[in-house]
Amino acid sequence: MKVKGKHYRSVWMEGTTVKLIEQNKLPFEFAIYEAKSYIQTCHAIKTMITRGAGAIGGTAGYAMAQAAIEASKSNYESEIQKAKRTIEATRPTAYDLFYTVNKVYEAALISPESAMLKAQEMADLNAEAGRKMGEFGSKLLSNNSRILTHCNAGWLAFVDYGSALSPVYVAQEQGKNIFVYADETRPRSQGARLTAWELLNQEVEHAIIPDNAAAYYMSKGKIDMLITGADRIAANGDVANKIGTLEKAIAAKYYGIPFYVTAPISTIDPHTLSGKDINIEQRSDDEVTKVTGPDEQQNFHTISITNPGSPVLNPAFDVTPASLVTGIITEKGIIEPTKEDISQLLNK
Amino acid sequence: MKVKGKHYRSVWMEGTTVKLIEQNKLPFEFAIYEAKSYIQTCHAIKTMITRGAGAIGGTAGYAMAQAAIEASKSNYESEIQKAKRTIEATRPTAYDLFYTVNKVYEAALISPESAMLKAQEMADLNAEAGRKMGEFGSKLLSNNSRILTHCNAGWLAFVDYGSALSPVYVAQEQGKNIFVYADETRPRSQGARLTAWELLNQEVEHAIIPDNAAAYYMSKGKIDMLITGADRIAANGDVANKIGTLEKAIAAKYYGIPFYVTAPISTIDPHTLSGKDINIEQRSDDEVTKVTGPDEQQNFHTISITNPGSPVLNPAFDVTPASLVTGIITEKGIIEPTKEDISQLLNK
Repeated sequence: MKVKGKHYRSVWMEGTTVKLIEQNKLPFEFAIYEAKSYIQTCHAIKTMITRGAGAIGGTAGYAMAQAAIEASKSNYESEIQKAKRTIEATRPTAYDLFYTVNKVYEAALISPESAMLKAQEMADLNAEAGRKMGEFGSKLLSNNSRILTHCNAGWLAFVDYGSALSPVYVAQEQGKNIFVYADETRPRSQGARLTAWELLNQEVEHAIIPDNAAAYYMSKGKIDMLITGADRIAANGDVANKIGTLEKAIAAKYYGIPFYVTAPISTIDPHTLSGKDINIEQRSDDEVTKVTGPDEQQNFHTISITNPGSPVLNPAFDVTPASLVTGIITEKGIIEPTKEDISQLLNK
Repeated sequence: MKVKGKHYRSVWMEGTTVKLIEQNKLPFEFAIYEAKSYIQTCHAIKTMITRGAGAIGGTAGYAMAQAAIEASKSNYESEIQKAKRTIEATRPTAYDLFYTVNKVYEAALISPESAMLKAQEMADLNAEAGRKMGEFGSKLLSNNSRILTHCNAGWLAFVDYGSALSPVYVAQEQGKNIFVYADETRPRSQGARLTAWELLNQEVEHAIIPDNAAAYYMSKGKIDMLITGADRIAANGDVANKIGTLEKAIAAKYYGIPFYVTAPISTIDPHTLSGKDINIEQRSDDEVTKVTGPDEQQNFHTISITNPGSPVLNPAFDVTPASLVTGIITEKGIIEPTKEDISQLLNK
């Protein structure tokens, strides 16, 4: 997608350097992070310089390729195996990471060059999947559709195009006017910071709302559809996604509003039988207790916003049961969130 | 309730000065605001130096008494009438405000002294109602009950004791161990700032959670009850309360968790037939786009936390239909949220 007229992906490789849009600096600064080693790329995933299931997958694939290039000839296999474990330990929930790292690791077993080619292929496939999900998803949107999205599943969360926002971008290309309610998405505010930034950039009509206001706008008949991405989809159609997705999905069901999950096949984990088996990451208290941003003079500060001394709980994801999901928009079409449809899709 | 061993109400009168705990400085500073005229007291309500339905009611009653004292002899009736309209225009949603102002206004028609006495009586009744709601509500709590509350309906939101938190405080006195999940309650974060401050002060076990995490903890079977306050209850039992209450109530229903609304009779508006007739206040974008707090050196900053240029929507309240409410805890007992029970209660 474009930033000030220039085309960018959220992550790409130049030589053996991985380059990433620094998402923790957005929307206040647009900067590129350069990771020259696989350890630096791991750091970028771990500290959320890049985030979003698809972008994490693409980045982790590049990290695996860097590791193969860096590995010594004498101890090659054990070194790339160790690197694989290090990369996999950066973030536990997103299945794309494991999926992509595995593919690149298999190529690395042949040669570092194969790993590099594979990582690039995976990134390209990821971008292409984003585009295709957009094409399928856009068919569900009419002119003047009003959608609610949670977190950021836009092109920043992907190598390109995005998952949940890709249908919006494609619908816009088709001349449809779409309005997006962007949930703030506390504690990290990816909606207010990243989704809003993307939408303003792409000139999509939108408004940031507090997470608490989603059901209010549903109750007022102002939301036609809920669309989110996914971090992991179980074999039975249960969906792990950013904390709060479950709450929006329950409200959507209550008001009879369709809820579509947009995710590439690489997000579906056939070995996870149901949502109960998904490991939910607990993140640092600091994400809840502190925020960073610029004052009016554009000086950045990190300030406390909660009662000092009070304990905090900060689960990063939740699991929405398949029964609350209307459909899953994938790069191969829209399916129902059932064991049968999912297994058929995986065998396509 | 006590702050560092000393008893405070959230609002009280000394002479003709209204004194208020400055809630917009909490939890980082404990300060008292002094409003020497009814206009200053209106300012305190409008700018949310005080907030919470009960505290607003008590404060507005004092403001009406101040206005009666300040009114000239020659033009008394028209001046107190004008003052009444000014006070009523400070916040549109909380019914306690209209209820209390009306009572004090009627007394003011007799004499300024009657108004002063009435305002004090109303504040005392409000504190007493808080205590009684706590006694009724505490019967619903067992040892080790885990409750979720939204916004702040503690003693800060009341003249004393609070509504939703009063049952917790009374249960604690009874020797029960209660755990409270305090929703952050964006955008103004009354949960993370005020409820957490109260609970830490009163040594009630608790944790601050992002608003998005409420359904997650419900899905994990970790919440036994949802308790909130109310800003206005319609004659049919629909409840207007802080934005996000509706979302929690829908989730509680989905998981079969009881939802109790705690509110004094002064919150019930018999002239509002249903929730559809409740005026929902839209507040400033700044509440969503900016936050204020101290850095590590205890210097305060106001910083931006959303994408600059993106539009914002900020409804302050939502309406939860009576069908999602298990019961209403009042100072005269616990009732079902039905037209019949409410009308019977009002005629007691």
